[in-house]
Amino acid sequence: MFKQLTVELGERSYPIYIGHGLLQTPDLLTDHIRGKQVLVVSNETVAPLYLEPVIEACSKLQVNTCILPDGEQYKNLEVLNRIFDTLLARRHNRTTTLLALGGGVVGDMTGFAAACYQRGVDFIQLPTTLLAQVDSSVGGKTAVNHAAGKNMIGAFYQPRAVIADIATLSTLPPREYSAGLAEVLKYGLIADREFFDWIESNSAALLERDSEAMVKAIYRSCENKARVVARDEREDGVRATLNLGHTFGHAIETFQGYGDWLHGEAVAAGMVIAAELSAQLHWIDRESVARIVHVISSMGLPVAPPAAMTAAQFLELMAVDKKVLDGSLRLVALQALGKACVTTEPSADLIASAIEASRSYPG
Amino acid sequence: MFKQLTVELGERSYPIYIGHGLLQTPDLLTDHIRGKQVLVVSNETVAPLYLEPVIEACSKLQVNTCILPDGEQYKNLEVLNRIFDTLLARRHNRTTTLLALGGGVVGDMTGFAAACYQRGVDFIQLPTTLLAQVDSSVGGKTAVNHAAGKNMIGAFYQPRAVIADIATLSTLPPREYSAGLAEVLKYGLIADREFFDWIESNSAALLERDSEAMVKAIYRSCENKARVVARDEREDGVRATLNLGHTFGHAIETFQGYGDWLHGEAVAAGMVIAAELSAQLHWIDRESVARIVHVISSMGLPVAPPAAMTAAQFLELMAVDKKVLDGSLRLVALQALGKACVTTEPSADLIASAIEASRSYPG
Repeated sequence: MFKQLTVELGERSYPIYIGHGLLQTPDLLTDHIRGKQVLVVSNETVAPLYLEPVIEACSKLQVNTCILPDGEQYKNLEVLNRIFDTLLARRHNRTTTLLALGGGVVGDMTGFAAACYQRGVDFIQLPTTLLAQVDSSVGGKTAVNHAAGKNMIGAFYQPRAVIADIATLSTLPPREYSAGLAEVLKYGLIADREFFDWIESNSAALLERDSEAMVKAIYRSCENKARVVARDEREDGVRATLNLGHTFGHAIETFQGYGDWLHGEAVAAGMVIAAELSAQLHWIDRESVARIVHVISSMGLPVAPPAAMTAAQFLELMAVDKKVLDGSLRLVALQALGKACVTTEPSADLIASAIEASRSYPG
Repeated sequence: MFKQLTVELGERSYPIYIGHGLLQTPDLLTDHIRGKQVLVVSNETVAPLYLEPVIEACSKLQVNTCILPDGEQYKNLEVLNRIFDTLLARRHNRTTTLLALGGGVVGDMTGFAAACYQRGVDFIQLPTTLLAQVDSSVGGKTAVNHAAGKNMIGAFYQPRAVIADIATLSTLPPREYSAGLAEVLKYGLIADREFFDWIESNSAALLERDSEAMVKAIYRSCENKARVVARDEREDGVRATLNLGHTFGHAIETFQGYGDWLHGEAVAAGMVIAAELSAQLHWIDRESVARIVHVISSMGLPVAPPAAMTAAQFLELMAVDKKVLDGSLRLVALQALGKACVTTEPSADLIASAIEASRSYPG
């Protein structure tokens, strides 16, 4: 049993399947493979747990594997080239399908490799982390990092399907699971007030990884994301609201050199700054900020930026972030709980003030 | 004075300008730049000759440069990364425009960099070789090479404009100029019998770089290419006929490790093999083959593959070439002078026989 929805993008539309045990359902996978060759890309942590059923599902095809080291620090052009090495050594042609079995890093790299290999081949997302299931596997953003900035080299390239097996979440370390909840909460904050209220009331069930709660949270998250992506595939407009907390979050990750805080943890702290900024703009009230901080904190996520990171360092790092358009910093702020917008209004002083204020919340 | 045509691709349509002294016409360039930042990518050979007027044309913008080493052997991911290094060091944002000032290698790498930088920014082609003006700058194929195969990593990504200044051809070494004529001839062979006849009658004027003959040859070549690309942007069908001679040519280039024969020279020898193959299939007569060989030879181009390269080596290298679809080798052959098709008909024996036969033509 699974739930299904579609990302509506004309001829690039694709289904998302969400359920328990989907990696044990071979047809679901093979129905979306058009050729006779498959390359499964995974990492050293995920492969020992979930590679076998995927290989078995493809037993009638030429199956090769490319197992990458695990971690954001390996999401670069050099490691990406290993995927190309394998594809060429195994003589994969234009009809091959790449399968991304893992979290956001595996998905981003596999998707970008699929976008570039022979100028574009098929790929399917098999996300095994909560973050990947609710965010990175949906919407076609693929990329690798550059030493000077996150996700600076990439492509908009849609998968043929996303198959989210929530059984894989059982092996996820608590910190990673909580980091994924940060993105779940984001959808409530930017576009779905009812969902925010539901998350607030069900944060305990979510944290305990209750199956029913997880399927609902993932489905509703994907539904929200699919709606935004369908309206704005290449992030010229509304899609930018999906970056709530991300400009601050990326600055935190760059400051730390990727690999200390998890992406979702950095985004959580970033969302608190964005909420504080929205309150300072008088767009949302103090009670809303307190509710946001409380939910984030109850999920075991940080509500303040790293103590060692100054507001000046934030501003410096955000200037090179790709959300900078023609010199002015575009930030996502909240006009209400469940309603986000992109703004260039906040001055550097106001941003610095919001960063400082966010340090005083009880974590 | 210049001639102009349009590549019709809906919202991705763009103009091609062909004429003498166009790099000295600043408005032509700046009219197609949307932001305030420009990165000129060129190489060590072309930059000293033509970089200055391009920089001057952009004097009201932030202009940075990235000068790459000259040669196909540098068309790889590692050198590509230098373009990203420069873009990030100079803080180029999503509204930047990359200018590709050089031959096919500069165009392919700059286009691919533009496709990937922040998931896609604008770029303009300023081709300075005949090959680039008639072929690689038009149509949106961008790529870098992998040690295991040519153009294996890339994207379909259209420029905002192509500005072909034939004045730049005056500094082109004779071998490179002749290599460009191979691609000019290709359009006659695959789709334009009248153009083939004209080239045959005007090969001396073309070889002497007569301005009028060059503009006509480049315009007609671009016109043919634009028509094919408009019908088939992503090479699912008719666009594959543009690869006449290229599958053999790529095998020659890979055999030599890129950098001995020029691309156009390898394609010239490849077109002779394709013509011979077509004759062995009884699609064209012996007289047509003789005419093709004679025109190619009169342009100073090779009509036979490298003596050291065996038919078996051809077949081995072509098997990994990206024109391989699900195991069968797809080749472009001639059904008549001015009419090409894609075929999987020729057996390995027939291909080997055509390769051997092509060695006996008078070069």
